[in-house]
Amino acid sequence: MAEIKNCAIFYVSDGTAITAETVGRSLITQFTGINFIEKRLAFINNVETAQAAADLIKNTPSDYQRLVINTVVDIELRKIIHSAGGLKLDPFNRLLRRIEKNLGVKSDPGVGRTHGMLDSTSYNARIEATNFALSHDDGVNLNLQKADLILLGVSRSGKTPTCLYLALHYGLKAANYPITDEDLERMKLPDDVMMHKQKLFGLTIDPFRLSQIRSERRPNSRYAALKKCQMEVSDAEVIYHRNQIPFLNTTLTSIEEISGKIMIALDLNKRLY
Amino acid sequence: MAEIKNCAIFYVSDGTAITAETVGRSLITQFTGINFIEKRLAFINNVETAQAAADLIKNTPSDYQRLVINTVVDIELRKIIHSAGGLKLDPFNRLLRRIEKNLGVKSDPGVGRTHGMLDSTSYNARIEATNFALSHDDGVNLNLQKADLILLGVSRSGKTPTCLYLALHYGLKAANYPITDEDLERMKLPDDVMMHKQKLFGLTIDPFRLSQIRSERRPNSRYAALKKCQMEVSDAEVIYHRNQIPFLNTTLTSIEEISGKIMIALDLNKRLY
Repeated sequence: MAEIKNCAIFYVSDGTAITAETVGRSLITQFTGINFIEKRLAFINNVETAQAAADLIKNTPSDYQRLVINTVVDIELRKIIHSAGGLKLDPFNRLLRRIEKNLGVKSDPGVGRTHGMLDSTSYNARIEATNFALSHDDGVNLNLQKADLILLGVSRSGKTPTCLYLALHYGLKAANYPITDEDLERMKLPDDVMMHKQKLFGLTIDPFRLSQIRSERRPNSRYAALKKCQMEVSDAEVIYHRNQIPFLNTTLTSIEEISGKIMIALDLNKRLY
Repeated sequence: MAEIKNCAIFYVSDGTAITAETVGRSLITQFTGINFIEKRLAFINNVETAQAAADLIKNTPSDYQRLVINTVVDIELRKIIHSAGGLKLDPFNRLLRRIEKNLGVKSDPGVGRTHGMLDSTSYNARIEATNFALSHDDGVNLNLQKADLILLGVSRSGKTPTCLYLALHYGLKAANYPITDEDLERMKLPDDVMMHKQKLFGLTIDPFRLSQIRSERRPNSRYAALKKCQMEVSDAEVIYHRNQIPFLNTTLTSIEEISGKIMIALDLNKRLY
């Protein structure tokens, strides 16, 4: 059997390094059998921080290969970082040149760095949406008229983190309605909720996983009992089916993916800021 | 004066398209004087959806240049999308080939697509951290022992969205302590908070902006009065200075950037999942 290879990947940026990290992670997930360690080196924007970053890269244990995703714009700082060795990967340079040629316009690297500041309208929308999600969590104080979407699901099926993600990332006002025992008994949702049918999206979850999550919260409770979880989940799914409410199983799905699918199902992509 | 150019940029992916979007947005922010419209085409994973995506790209108004960031892996589907025309940009292909060569290992594109599922440990950490942030919001029910960090700030200075972002993205347990009128009068923080000094990070904000935010919440209140906001902000900053608590002005800073800077200041980057 082949030896497991070790690889250190560095995300280097003069900003938050989130973009470099997103690209790098997307690349390394396509390799199996490699032991990757990741290190984010953010706000590398002067000679001192660049030198410190270079030293850190240089001091990687010798049995590690080194990959350096470098999105630093300043040429002098880039040189300092590259002096540390490792495979240099720049995800943007070549794409930028091609876009410049296609559009017949020169890019201005300085602009990108202040993006966070220019974007204050969408920033405020995101904060406002986050406050909306917090004040419309778990059925409290519902003002569904203003909501862009309403997530349904039994307790602990993943509604809250999904609402918060949609708010923080896309400025979407996501309310959430926890399906109650009473709803399940009547096998229908309240009229106040059903009147917003086009905004509804259901979450479901594997009952075993649900029971596990609820047990962490209230061990040995009726609430966490597998039998109870099985019934709740199955009844909620019947309600979704009967009312043609689109729904998704969250058990093995990341928040990013759930959010993406909800935005497609409810045609909310147009709200992209 | 030159005419403003129009450009439609498409983020096409067999997954959520978040990576394609992150890359694309980073590229287009480096161009000024271009009117960009963006469209995310996610979950393009069969012939029907690929054809629909191609049709949509083809039907772009003729006065728009078209850029297509395509991260779809399947070769047949890629061809369908490329048949629509526009400048084809693949941020990964070339980087992948270089990494393969460097590591002496072939990549397996199928692996990346199931990343969301493989990552359930970090997923659970993120959910747990989100619940922690929600239950430790605005000083309620504080269990600071378990917190990775504690954000300080006067009411509406941006603590909650930042805590949620750190939790959802990095699985960090972020508590938040709102500085009270009483603290400001005594010009010191409670001992319960100060005993975790190495976890503390302060937020501050422009008083004019703060007054505006508070006015939306409680118009014409003492709480929202500019004078009151000015005093609170200035006193809070004195407290940070006196206690050598690192702090940041959130007025013109994005949540991503605030989060990145906090992680550096408190040396939390090592917790990267």
